[in-house]
Amino acid sequence: MKVHISELKDHVGQSVTVSGWLYQKRSSGKIKFAVLRDGTGYLQGVLAKGEAADSALDDFERLTQESSFSMTGPVREDKRAPGGFEMTVKELTVIQVAGEYPIGPKEHGPGFLMDNRHLWLRSSRQHAIMRVRNEIVMAIRQFFYERDFVLIDTPILTGAIGETASTLFETQYFDLGKAYLAQTGQLYVEAGAMAHGRVYCFGPTFRAEKSKTRKHLNEFWMLEPEVAFNDSNANMQLQEDLVCYIMDWVLRKCRTELAALSRDVSKLEAVKAPFPRISYDEAITRLQKAGMTISWGNDFGAPDEEKLMEEYERPLFVYNWPTECKAFYMKRNPERPDVVLCDDLLGPEGYGELIGGSQREDDHDLLLERIREQKLPEESYAWYLDLRKYGSVPHAGFGLGLERVVGWICGLEHVRETIPFARTIGRLYP
Amino acid sequence: MKVHISELKDHVGQSVTVSGWLYQKRSSGKIKFAVLRDGTGYLQGVLAKGEAADSALDDFERLTQESSFSMTGPVREDKRAPGGFEMTVKELTVIQVAGEYPIGPKEHGPGFLMDNRHLWLRSSRQHAIMRVRNEIVMAIRQFFYERDFVLIDTPILTGAIGETASTLFETQYFDLGKAYLAQTGQLYVEAGAMAHGRVYCFGPTFRAEKSKTRKHLNEFWMLEPEVAFNDSNANMQLQEDLVCYIMDWVLRKCRTELAALSRDVSKLEAVKAPFPRISYDEAITRLQKAGMTISWGNDFGAPDEEKLMEEYERPLFVYNWPTECKAFYMKRNPERPDVVLCDDLLGPEGYGELIGGSQREDDHDLLLERIREQKLPEESYAWYLDLRKYGSVPHAGFGLGLERVVGWICGLEHVRETIPFARTIGRLYP
Repeated sequence: MKVHISELKDHVGQSVTVSGWLYQKRSSGKIKFAVLRDGTGYLQGVLAKGEAADSALDDFERLTQESSFSMTGPVREDKRAPGGFEMTVKELTVIQVAGEYPIGPKEHGPGFLMDNRHLWLRSSRQHAIMRVRNEIVMAIRQFFYERDFVLIDTPILTGAIGETASTLFETQYFDLGKAYLAQTGQLYVEAGAMAHGRVYCFGPTFRAEKSKTRKHLNEFWMLEPEVAFNDSNANMQLQEDLVCYIMDWVLRKCRTELAALSRDVSKLEAVKAPFPRISYDEAITRLQKAGMTISWGNDFGAPDEEKLMEEYERPLFVYNWPTECKAFYMKRNPERPDVVLCDDLLGPEGYGELIGGSQREDDHDLLLERIREQKLPEESYAWYLDLRKYGSVPHAGFGLGLERVVGWICGLEHVRETIPFARTIGRLYP
Repeated sequence: MKVHISELKDHVGQSVTVSGWLYQKRSSGKIKFAVLRDGTGYLQGVLAKGEAADSALDDFERLTQESSFSMTGPVREDKRAPGGFEMTVKELTVIQVAGEYPIGPKEHGPGFLMDNRHLWLRSSRQHAIMRVRNEIVMAIRQFFYERDFVLIDTPILTGAIGETASTLFETQYFDLGKAYLAQTGQLYVEAGAMAHGRVYCFGPTFRAEKSKTRKHLNEFWMLEPEVAFNDSNANMQLQEDLVCYIMDWVLRKCRTELAALSRDVSKLEAVKAPFPRISYDEAITRLQKAGMTISWGNDFGAPDEEKLMEEYERPLFVYNWPTECKAFYMKRNPERPDVVLCDDLLGPEGYGELIGGSQREDDHDLLLERIREQKLPEESYAWYLDLRKYGSVPHAGFGLGLERVVGWICGLEHVRETIPFARTIGRLYP
């Protein structure tokens, strides 16, 4: 019977076949040990003369790292074994003897590892990260599904840009001129919110930024919920609920993976509602008092974010940022138009901005004024302005960068490990 | 208390406030009726002099189609009312009186409706379709989550193309030359399958095809599972399991929406395992007997698919197609290299190909031969060939076109209604 390693607990005492790749092997006197990985776990096979077929013992010798093979035999529980089970191997069948595997136990530089990303994904650390990513995505989908949000998949190819014109990838779109790769799905989910009330999109987004930092990707996944009749406060509440939901989910489902990543789980357990909220004004005052050289109207640098977060174990909302710092679609505070009704959610431990959210400008004329100020092509935004003509309502939403959250929860130094195949300024391969 | 219409069943007898948009209104003598939609449902408000505030009666007169407003009052069950509840309106607050709404009860052409897609989404029919799409996506995510598949989000920007070079969108990628928008994530999920065993991707894909049919989009969502150690038979089984799971889910969750779409649900209920399987050879024989002018080696046209499906209420697998018809990565039948170990799953009722799947070529040299035959740039595929060097194993997977499935299940004539913002050869707006 063929089984996956994750199913072994239901097959103790039975003879089963598992198939996969050689992770490690060693010999100790007359006994040989082969650790097989099949993607769901690791299983140590024990080969002893007399118990294993002679051909199995011969084939064991041929196995190189990452060779593919099957082994068959009875399985027993063994707390000392990696994964908690061990197999007494009777038969062993080689599928392919792998060539000399490029990734060895010695230290490799990040460039080499990224060149071999298609293989590096097999390492136990990268394996754990992708499993955590998988759980975070499912937590997000489930959170919105339970709350009756409707998924509105927004287009990648678009004429209406959402952020800044300077960081667009473009492509020829038949005879219609240039199309741009979406920097955000937000403008489109706003249309969705007017149809369904509560919606979200969750897909890849693109920024042709020439940044080379440990936090930047040129292609990344973004979650963008949008809610009719939410104001900026309700928007922050939704963000807090979501982050707590994700954290609870990961702490329930990913203990093995977090241990494999040596993640300090107590830092994650400390993330509980309510998250503190301070205004941008207050943040600037604090930063200046702490000796940082930042003035009102500036965006935060990484050192500012770190300084501000020194006293917090939980994420921090910084709300109502200067209008000049933020995108054209954010609603200006009616009582004070130099700030917009928005928030950034900063992660603890130096992970920076996890979420950016805002109430949207719902007044047609004020929105048009902002589009003109930014010299955006008005005709591409006619449909977006329509949303303010036909039953405009207050509404708010946010964007959560998936890779930032994966990096934070896994405790990673560099965003390149948070996504299966990272796209950065110097990397389009593999 | 503010509530959504979908929550009214928990608030019968209470006074609540609902907010949304005017769907319909009418007066009957001294009584006025306003139907409000909030994205979760429809609620009829009844305004009578003496019960409703005078200002509410005045404001009622100002409401135009799609005007945004709130109404407050006690709610009671009423089986005759749309949605099953009715409100005795005490207060009515106008948020915005909408300008003359472009989409009226009269017939509009598809071009006009697509130009106003951002508003058309609000119609009850489009609303129902998007809710069904939402449920299909969640069913798919849940199916793979339950089966311990790991999500591997594959890149959109890529140097390695998966299908044919003639239908690529391209963009300049910094100093690295051209990047292509992914036609498929398959090559990358194959790398994922060697790391995790069972994986899938589910994201947007792109084809710069100049087709103008009711089945073609230039940007569409594709689900692509990939499983190590699956052969073509196991691959078909997984497809069948998935389609039955989706159908069961939709029939449980979307009765209201399917009724709104006037979908003949008996056709969907007939979709049950097992799905019939015939070889391509057999299909050709049958088509020729039925008088179709098709020869061995040809792909099917829509009339061929329809002819073949005449006798089936369930989807039909057609397996082992001519090698020359299919992509370079499919594994040739070792006993008969003129066919590949693949399948197309054809939908009933003329919906054509829902899924295309195959076992992948796992032999390094045979794969390289195919890459050279197709004059693909070898250096971009070096990583893909590596998967056949370091522990190659039999593996198989498939691609399910989300919009095809949404169109089939909803019973739609044209694929443009299956996705929030369709991208076709003549359309990049809104």
